Amino acid sequence: MEIDGIPYRTIWVEEPGRSVGIIDQTKLPHRFTTVTLSSMDEAARAISDMLVRGAPLIGATAAYGMAMACNEDASDEGLRRAYDRLYSTRPTAVNLRWALDQMTALLDNRAVEERAALAWARAAEIGDEDVEICKAIGRNGLTLIEEIAAQKPKGEPVNVLTHCNAGWLATVDWGTATAPIYMAYEAGIPIHVWVDETRPRNQGAALTAFELGRHGVDHTLVADNVGGHLMQRGLVDLCIVGTDRTTARGDVCNKIGTYLKALAAKDNEVPFYVALPSTTIDWTVEDGLAEIPIEQRSGRELTRIAGRTETGEVVEVDIAPEGVAARNDAFDVTPARLVSGLITERGVAPATKEGLAGLFER
Amino acid sequence: MEIDGIPYRTIWVEEPGRSVGIIDQTKLPHRFTTVTLSSMDEAARAISDMLVRGAPLIGATAAYGMAMACNEDASDEGLRRAYDRLYSTRPTAVNLRWALDQMTALLDNRAVEERAALAWARAAEIGDEDVEICKAIGRNGLTLIEEIAAQKPKGEPVNVLTHCNAGWLATVDWGTATAPIYMAYEAGIPIHVWVDETRPRNQGAALTAFELGRHGVDHTLVADNVGGHLMQRGLVDLCIVGTDRTTARGDVCNKIGTYLKALAAKDNEVPFYVALPSTTIDWTVEDGLAEIPIEQRSGRELTRIAGRTETGEVVEVDIAPEGVAARNDAFDVTPARLVSGLITERGVAPATKEGLAGLFER
Repeated sequence: MEIDGIPYRTIWVEEPGRSVGIIDQTKLPHRFTTVTLSSMDEAARAISDMLVRGAPLIGATAAYGMAMACNEDASDEGLRRAYDRLYSTRPTAVNLRWALDQMTALLDNRAVEERAALAWARAAEIGDEDVEICKAIGRNGLTLIEEIAAQKPKGEPVNVLTHCNAGWLATVDWGTATAPIYMAYEAGIPIHVWVDETRPRNQGAALTAFELGRHGVDHTLVADNVGGHLMQRGLVDLCIVGTDRTTARGDVCNKIGTYLKALAAKDNEVPFYVALPSTTIDWTVEDGLAEIPIEQRSGRELTRIAGRTETGEVVEVDIAPEGVAARNDAFDVTPARLVSGLITERGVAPATKEGLAGLFER
Repeated sequence: MEIDGIPYRTIWVEEPGRSVGIIDQTKLPHRFTTVTLSSMDEAARAISDMLVRGAPLIGATAAYGMAMACNEDASDEGLRRAYDRLYSTRPTAVNLRWALDQMTALLDNRAVEERAALAWARAAEIGDEDVEICKAIGRNGLTLIEEIAAQKPKGEPVNVLTHCNAGWLATVDWGTATAPIYMAYEAGIPIHVWVDETRPRNQGAALTAFELGRHGVDHTLVADNVGGHLMQRGLVDLCIVGTDRTTARGDVCNKIGTYLKALAAKDNEVPFYVALPSTTIDWTVEDGLAEIPIEQRSGRELTRIAGRTETGEVVEVDIAPEGVAARNDAFDVTPARLVSGLITERGVAPATKEGLAGLFER
């Protein structure tokens, strides 16, 4: 997508066969800075320090990290060390392991001197494949937006509410929940996005509002408390959110607060869709509430926040009473009964076991 | 209630017939400071600058403001000027007008030299009456907590979720939603409170967490996104919130986000109660969604926040992308169908027209 008119991906080759560029996402929305990664270790640190985040982007970065490792020491031993180092950065990220395994499978049994060229090519492919998946999700979700637009007076925008950041910044390009929005924007359909702030890490305010704004998509930031009220007043036509993990029957584990918006959508008959690459479907799990453990993160994320002072300096401040106990559940589970449909790269499926199995022929 | 073991009200006489003390609530939770108000003008500025807030406390402060006006110029003309000055501070606050009218009705047709003594006595009474109402709400709500406690294993806390600040800091003492909680605490019932942060103004984090903590009541701060998840996991026994305005049929207009928690309570069969003095019932309104206009406040409240730096300085920082559009609806309406009951000073009423009319004999 674009930043102030310039097309970007979240990761790109700078010097072919040598280095890649990334956006330092820890600085958003306060500063837009890019960083060059020229070694496996720099790639690993970019992941562990969260300069890159979002499962698909983490995977792509790790793949390039393996390619850089081939420049440094392409021996079996060298690659094993690189695998371990990269894997240790965010061990719970499913895509990270998948990307590393892809690279290992490719390089195993190849001559050491061939490995670098092969690795750089495959890393680029992994990025391109992610872009294609997101574009397919976008095309499938676009039909939902087109249907709503057709029923509205000409020129009146379709109002989409989204939660957290399932945007192009979390992927290589297009995003998941945002892909249909960008496609609608490109197609000239008037569209407006309600962006949930998404406490406590504020990914909506920091990332989604930033990326929509810089690409030129009309949007309004709201507190997480506001969505239900907007739906009561008829100001939301459609919700589209992302997901970290979807169960075989369509329960959705996504950023904390998603469940509350799904309840409000149901109460006000607003369609509630979840956009996902099929890689995030966990076919081994049925009942999301009973079976998915929820990550507990530090309460500091709730009581402390970074912002710009009047002089433009970025500082962290404490916003709650000193020493307060704070609980920080990172995700919640939205039961399938509240989900209107799952927008995947293969099409839109009902949030049921049959719906998903039908699309993915299992 | 207490602050670190010292009993406080939110407003108290310092020099009898001369001055009152208040807590500067704009400084919470970062600094606890008290301020002396010695003139009508100081009282007016304490209200308009929100050193005091919450309808009952604003009313009590305005009453003392009229008493101070009697010290300065007790003539009819002087009191008219004081009325206008105090009324202009927060013209939409119902209790403000009510308190000023009470004072005017008392002082009219009294000799000018009698007025100051009468006014100081009546202002004290207005404060005491508010305390009695809150205590009655507390006693009525306490029975709900006792019933839940009786069904739990001995020693296991009753978990109450609350939103925003309907605490003693918003009243003269005890609060509305918090009164049953403080009564349970005094009665030795193990109790734990989930405190919604309450974006965008963070009254939960800044005020509710502060007052519960300083009084000694066990509590945990959570993001507004978390309540539904906690209810899904059986971690909430009861919700108690306040209200700005309740309709004759029991629709509740309260701080933005209340509706989302009520939906989650319904979905998980958690009782959802609203605590209110009957003065906040608007008998002229039935359908809250159709009839109550919702205040739109500045988007700056969402994009900018005050906090403490590492050196203890309190600064304001911008937390969203520069220039982002932000919408800030201050309240929402929770339909009566989602409300388990209304805890008033006269008892607990069903959230229906008949329920309310029965209790208040209309």
